[in-house]
Amino acid sequence: MDPIYITELFGTFFFSMSGALAAAEHNEEHDWFGAGFIGFVTAIGGGSLRDILLGSYPLIWIGNVSFLYAILAGIILAGIFYNTLLKLRKTFLLFDTFGISLFTILGTEKALRFGISSEVAAIMGMFTAVMGGVVRDTLLNEIPIIFKKEIYASACLIGASAYLLLIQFGVERNICFFLSILVIVIVRVLALKFHLSLPKFKRG
Amino acid sequence: MDPIYITELFGTFFFSMSGALAAAEHNEEHDWFGAGFIGFVTAIGGGSLRDILLGSYPLIWIGNVSFLYAILAGIILAGIFYNTLLKLRKTFLLFDTFGISLFTILGTEKALRFGISSEVAAIMGMFTAVMGGVVRDTLLNEIPIIFKKEIYASACLIGASAYLLLIQFGVERNICFFLSILVIVIVRVLALKFHLSLPKFKRG
Amino acid sequence: MDPIYITELFGTFFFSMSGALAAAEHNEEHDWFGAGFIGFVTAIGGGSLRDILLGSYPLIWIGNVSFLYAILAGIILAGIFYNTLLKLRKTFLLFDTFGISLFTILGTEKALRFGISSEVAAIMGMFTAVMGGVVRDTLLNEIPIIFKKEIYASACLIGASAYLLLIQFGVERNICFFLSILVIVIVRVLALKFHLSLPKFKRG
Repeated sequence: MDPIYITELFGTFFFSMSGALAAAEHNEEHDWFGAGFIGFVTAIGGGSLRDILLGSYPLIWIGNVSFLYAILAGIILAGIFYNTLLKLRKTFLLFDTFGISLFTILGTEKALRFGISSEVAAIMGMFTAVMGGVVRDTLLNEIPIIFKKEIYASACLIGASAYLLLIQFGVERNICFFLSILVIVIVRVLALKFHLSLPKFKRG
Repeated sequence: MDPIYITELFGTFFFSMSGALAAAEHNEEHDWFGAGFIGFVTAIGGGSLRDILLGSYPLIWIGNVSFLYAILAGIILAGIFYNTLLKLRKTFLLFDTFGISLFTILGTEKALRFGISSEVAAIMGMFTAVMGGVVRDTLLNEIPIIFKKEIYASACLIGASAYLLLIQFGVERNICFFLSILVIVIVRVLALKFHLSLPKFKRG
Repeated sequence: MDPIYITELFGTFFFSMSGALAAAEHNEEHDWFGAGFIGFVTAIGGGSLRDILLGSYPLIWIGNVSFLYAILAGIILAGIFYNTLLKLRKTFLLFDTFGISLFTILGTEKALRFGISSEVAAIMGMFTAVMGGVVRDTLLNEIPIIFKKEIYASACLIGASAYLLLIQFGVERNICFFLSILVIVIVRVLALKFHLSLPKFKRG
């Protein structure tokens, strides 16, 4: 089996799990449907938006039902092991970091196949990784994650740019892939560890 | 004339009317444009999202201007008979129940024609019925209807599943259609009458 | 170079600048990424929604990277000249008025090329002009601009209708274009000057 496909399925599973947990944490009144719905849009939101913007049909989860089962598994596990999972916050943050890194580069790669410019492809990669979370936060009436303090979506943009630069320099595709994922993980981990943030837009 | 087409037009009319009323109830300051805009997105939101996700062009209301006039009629009647209509809450709840039931099965049916899996088709049916309301509530900064207590969107999922099962068993299409609409109506009416809700996601 | 193309680029530049400024005004904690993201969606939101609804691919900013650079320029200038620009509120209101007028008619014109009815084309024109602002306000958790008091989106609808009527009467396309932009500007300026608003939907 294709290792990328397996990783994508696992990433989808993970995002639905973390989405359902976030929903239940946000409002303890959520029932299974509500939490599951939030898990679902968190998992498919970013990739769907990218595909709709590119006009790439069918959307992955519509053409391949395995993604739906990965999402369902994530939601069910989140509901059953709710208390245990909430204690694993640090592990989650790590998974989330790997998740957004992977989806950024996969999204950038897919966008490139549509013959669009590198600049736009990098944005598509970032959208793939973070827009599911933006839809989740909008539905929960929270400030979208991308506006929070530590470098998050901008780490994705940096990684996507690294990927595109490496390709430009003729580096072998698999190496580009792993190096740029590493870039995102490192930027994000450093940002979390040292509370790095971008400069304010408005100067005092 | 095709009875399904007539029912769809009437459902669209009804959803725009209930959307405009909800807008005006939410905020008495809404002018005709604001309430009308909310009525409009309530009426077209679900079907448009389904068609965009499926890549089904042209969207119904873009290809056939009659839907726009049905929406306009709903908005104007809502504005003129505002006070009278608000007294008919129970009737409205009934209409809404019929509306989501019908749109769920029509949406599921349409999704099937795109050769997608039954599981995804059921989700598309549910989206058709409830996502207009979700967009309406998001624009009004309210908690989306699908997260509220009584069984609502999950009734649509149950009905869509019933439809798909009946088809699988070789039941005649028209009978599948009416039986599964009946399933949604019954589940929803029972849920309202006995305040049924799904189990909480987070256990105490 | 095509004068319309230049104007579109400039309009995109302007909308991203005003979007980034609005983000920073709304919340002083926004960093460059957050304000830039809001500027970006403000600039591309309306046109993207129109193109997705019409099934018109590729979206303009995806097919032509110049729009991305216009957006970037708008964001950077907004960040550097933040304090100066905020003092130019009146100038901004004027630019915004020209911006929505132009985008309304360009959007209507584009929709017509898809062979859709005039009524739907007018709505597409209005969407082009105002939906970027709606997405911006939704992300900022504010009441969307189109629901605010002074005539805004309805001025766009009036202008789009004027455009379609003039075409129907066989008036030369360029004249239709300029006259209908003038209609929107005049309606909007009068609405601002005399605090005109549409009648309330709910009568006391």
